[in-house]
Amino acid sequence: MIKLAKDINMSLSSDSKQWLNLGVGNPLITKEVEEYWLSVIKSISAEKVAQSVMSYGSTSGDLLLRKTCSELLNKHYGWETTAENILVTNGSQSLFFMLNNIFSGQFNSDSKKIFIPALPEYVGYSGQILNQDGFDARLPTVKNIDDKEFIYKLDIENCHVNRREHGAMILSFPSNPTGKCLSEQEWQFLVKAAENEGIPLIIDCAYGNPFPGLCHQPIDFKMLPNLVYSFSFSKAGIPGSRIGIAVADSALVANLSLSQCNATIQPNAYAQLLANQAINHHDLSRFCHQVLRPMYSDMALFAKTLMMDLFKGINWKMHQYSGGMFLWIQFSDLKCNSQVIYEEAKKHKLIIVPGDVFFFGVDSSSIGGEQCIRISLAVSERTLIEGLSILKNIIHKLLVKKAKAEATF
Amino acid sequence: MIKLAKDINMSLSSDSKQWLNLGVGNPLITKEVEEYWLSVIKSISAEKVAQSVMSYGSTSGDLLLRKTCSELLNKHYGWETTAENILVTNGSQSLFFMLNNIFSGQFNSDSKKIFIPALPEYVGYSGQILNQDGFDARLPTVKNIDDKEFIYKLDIENCHVNRREHGAMILSFPSNPTGKCLSEQEWQFLVKAAENEGIPLIIDCAYGNPFPGLCHQPIDFKMLPNLVYSFSFSKAGIPGSRIGIAVADSALVANLSLSQCNATIQPNAYAQLLANQAINHHDLSRFCHQVLRPMYSDMALFAKTLMMDLFKGINWKMHQYSGGMFLWIQFSDLKCNSQVIYEEAKKHKLIIVPGDVFFFGVDSSSIGGEQCIRISLAVSERTLIEGLSILKNIIHKLLVKKAKAEATF
Repeated sequence: MIKLAKDINMSLSSDSKQWLNLGVGNPLITKEVEEYWLSVIKSISAEKVAQSVMSYGSTSGDLLLRKTCSELLNKHYGWETTAENILVTNGSQSLFFMLNNIFSGQFNSDSKKIFIPALPEYVGYSGQILNQDGFDARLPTVKNIDDKEFIYKLDIENCHVNRREHGAMILSFPSNPTGKCLSEQEWQFLVKAAENEGIPLIIDCAYGNPFPGLCHQPIDFKMLPNLVYSFSFSKAGIPGSRIGIAVADSALVANLSLSQCNATIQPNAYAQLLANQAINHHDLSRFCHQVLRPMYSDMALFAKTLMMDLFKGINWKMHQYSGGMFLWIQFSDLKCNSQVIYEEAKKHKLIIVPGDVFFFGVDSSSIGGEQCIRISLAVSERTLIEGLSILKNIIHKLLVKKAKAEATF
Repeated sequence: MIKLAKDINMSLSSDSKQWLNLGVGNPLITKEVEEYWLSVIKSISAEKVAQSVMSYGSTSGDLLLRKTCSELLNKHYGWETTAENILVTNGSQSLFFMLNNIFSGQFNSDSKKIFIPALPEYVGYSGQILNQDGFDARLPTVKNIDDKEFIYKLDIENCHVNRREHGAMILSFPSNPTGKCLSEQEWQFLVKAAENEGIPLIIDCAYGNPFPGLCHQPIDFKMLPNLVYSFSFSKAGIPGSRIGIAVADSALVANLSLSQCNATIQPNAYAQLLANQAINHHDLSRFCHQVLRPMYSDMALFAKTLMMDLFKGINWKMHQYSGGMFLWIQFSDLKCNSQVIYEEAKKHKLIIVPGDVFFFGVDSSSIGGEQCIRISLAVSERTLIEGLSILKNIIHKLLVKKAKAEATF
């Protein structure tokens, strides 16, 4: 993750115009997105900002914002949460840092790990646990839909979570990097497992509904004592502001609030003003539903169509796009690791994200994970066209090289 | 700390006007302070804010701000730092959370703790280490200056730090809670010890110079490979914004930057804009030196004079005020723990901070630590007069009660 971040920073520095970045994690800031957030910012008076930054606030987050979020989610999901179920954090990365460390490690005689039901999974979790080897992660099975699309399925036979070995389960939904959303059956399986074992199931809705609203196969999320939902305002357009929320049982929220006090006193005040203003006075849900959602799904469709056209004659497949900000593409005929694609791409000033970083050190060869890459939908059509054209040439070259190598045997 | 925070929150809620709060940790926001920060806020355009919150920034902090801080500190201390020596964080609490956990715990066969050279020390460190019992803290000796003032001195005989047991040393300077600044001799002792043992000496300048500028006995701070300085913008007036910086060897800054990436991606963008704008366009150093510094030292003098007057006939002493935002007061004739003063004060709607929370569980009876309280200088003169008057009655009552109890023997 660190190396990637450095490469991406490098591509964004002085000669950034020469680079094509399909590795982008930043949400796409179109004119419409910019205007939306600019209007939110302009509607908050300097006096209000001053008042809020000049004093310490609540360590759980501003009460008004917690109420606001609670009401928004109640309306969207039919929940009956109150402010006591909401913790505001400096972004969901901060929340997962707390959760991953609180629920892993030594508990009396048991050494517990965080259970990841199906790889590939968000790379940002992987460095979070202070003890090494803090995750127990499983590979999915692969279900082919047609010759161009597949879905990773929870390998239920191989997905036995238990309270002695596991402190919590986590997953991103929609998934970063694959765009997968769990089926109702998969969801029920995990909810039941969490309930049976009495451990939290933590759902990272960084790309979910109602904000940023990028989930196209939503599940009827329930508020149950074992479930923890994480929502982020980053992909709605304000990643630099650092704000996210957790929704959970009030006792857990109270405990997390104490951890947050020790770790960072309180979430930052300005991002809380932004979030509150966006929800209460600029209809954030509508903006997400009407602007962001079609923007990314259109781009996913555009990218797929482009792939169909550009990659003729090359054996490629993608994970079905059900949400989020990325496409997950597999080049099955390549036998090299995706790091090779990544390095080749860099030589041509193209950034893609090699798939192996999302496998937490687990050997993914049985599902062809080593031949996968992640590309971002948070780019312009032009970047996508130019980037995928270069990528096609690279893949073609690697395939020719492989064929030659095989011919010499 | 948590209980205190709750009580203080309670005192600030609905009937807050009836409470007198001498426990305040918030910096004093006078009209002048408010005008200063309001002018900083107003001078940042909405477009600039939008640009900065709508994209991820560097995980070490904005390069411009790092340069700005480096130049400011070079000018103030005669250092030769560059941006590579500066890490921006979501406040110094976040920095200490990283440092305290990175430098304590299991290292091969050694189990290391954070060494605290002299208690009492900032209570906010005490809950930060995920492993219990992560601190090794020492009591100071007491040097009486006159019948009303004393100084805690480093107990050098008892202050043997060593690399097998200790991962780092930390101290606040000026001290929260006592207002102490190390003497040159004490400082040299710690610097030498850190150098000899090859472990970091971490200096928390939350109340230091040049911002907020509340250190009245400054030391000629050097930039040495083993020294880590922490500065915060909180006490300069923007605690809710969450921003602080670390100044350290560039290799450590690079490592902390990786930790910060895992823990929270990056420091929040808006506070960075504020800090940068304040330093570059609103002469933050001058504001701190000319406005904040005399404000707190005047208040310290006022409080002492008031104590001399109000507490006649009661045996009290205070730690010499050399900086910071608090006075540390001892009532030697009381034999009860300061928690009793705290509870009695609450009954009279007065908040003070009982001294024992600053002793990290160490028995402080040998230096009379149990009869100490911390009062805040970040209050109005009126609050100080009313609060100390109530406190005087409480102490008087407790002394009468004690005398009666003794008379019955």
